[in-house]
Amino acid sequence: MLSDKLAKQIDFIKEIDKVKYIQRKTKLFNSDRNENDAEHSWHLALMALILTEHSNERIDILKVIKMVLIHDIVEIDAGDTFIYDSQKNHSNTDEERLAAQRIFGLLPQEQRDELIAIWEEFEAGESPEAKFARSMDRLEPLLQNISNNGGTWNEFGVNYDKVYEKKQIIKEGSETLWNFAEGLINDSVEKGILKKDKS
Amino acid sequence: MLSDKLAKQIDFIKEIDKVKYIQRKTKLFNSDRNENDAEHSWHLALMALILTEHSNERIDILKVIKMVLIHDIVEIDAGDTFIYDSQKNHSNTDEERLAAQRIFGLLPQEQRDELIAIWEEFEAGESPEAKFARSMDRLEPLLQNISNNGGTWNEFGVNYDKVYEKKQIIKEGSETLWNFAEGLINDSVEKGILKKDKS
Repeated sequence: MLSDKLAKQIDFIKEIDKVKYIQRKTKLFNSDRNENDAEHSWHLALMALILTEHSNERIDILKVIKMVLIHDIVEIDAGDTFIYDSQKNHSNTDEERLAAQRIFGLLPQEQRDELIAIWEEFEAGESPEAKFARSMDRLEPLLQNISNNGGTWNEFGVNYDKVYEKKQIIKEGSETLWNFAEGLINDSVEKGILKKDKS
Repeated sequence: MLSDKLAKQIDFIKEIDKVKYIQRKTKLFNSDRNENDAEHSWHLALMALILTEHSNERIDILKVIKMVLIHDIVEIDAGDTFIYDSQKNHSNTDEERLAAQRIFGLLPQEQRDELIAIWEEFEAGESPEAKFARSMDRLEPLLQNISNNGGTWNEFGVNYDKVYEKKQIIKEGSETLWNFAEGLINDSVEKGILKKDKS
């Protein structure tokens, strides 16, 4: 006998399978194959676990993991927005809010409320957990682009200033990881895989 | 300045990208596209989060999540073993132990030791957390096969007895989920997507 609650949970579990089809612009490490949102979210969860000690502030790591596991689920309805897309704001669109209502709304009320709150907290980027989660979200594609000789920077003509501006958010989550990332960005200019000129 | 510790953590983070290339036998929901280990691990982590309340015993959900996020990392070296492969034991092979030593061994000592211990605990399947993690690992492909009109059961001629035997492990993690799963298995026979005959 399937309880109403379990039925809702199973519906949600089936629905989120679609996250595996959402292609990001960024490619896997040393690869020309696009990463999808499920792979990306799995990687961020493990990064958060491994890099916890570098957080600027004390964090509830379970909350950070929940954030990164669910942060892209809204893209089932809203699609992936490229971080360097100047036409469209990367986050917090009305479309994404509607998507959160629909998809997390498949769950029993209490879980729905918890996951929407966690997603909104991630989007707001103000709590220690959200800051650390967002620094993971910025660090992974930086490492990927470097492994791919510039990756999306070259592909979409993104210059140093833009990369530096977008990646600075890492600093809010972790000064240590920002120092590391800043070094990588500067090295990328020296290596010629990131351009200083205006794009 | 990159500390030795951070350098090791970043090496591990890069290495595990390979999990995204390891194809499982099981296909995505309603799909003919094989699932990979990173997608699978992400899905299990969210299932564990959503279904926690159904665990037979009190569990440390953070530990369960760590287990499912890392449980297939050894397959980078050892490859995926199909659960219904009668020639090869599904888990705990020497090959997998060597893989765990090499891959988790990229991390700083303390993290290496923690993750190897968690992986071994999952493989042993005796703690409440391992039992629940393993029930997630059995439930996801059951749902996938049903969505795919029998999926790997038909593709590889796996019969009811074998499926019933392998899926019973769900009961150790959750009586509730086992009742649900048992119903699905029996329904599958009625629908003709799972055969009772010996294969």
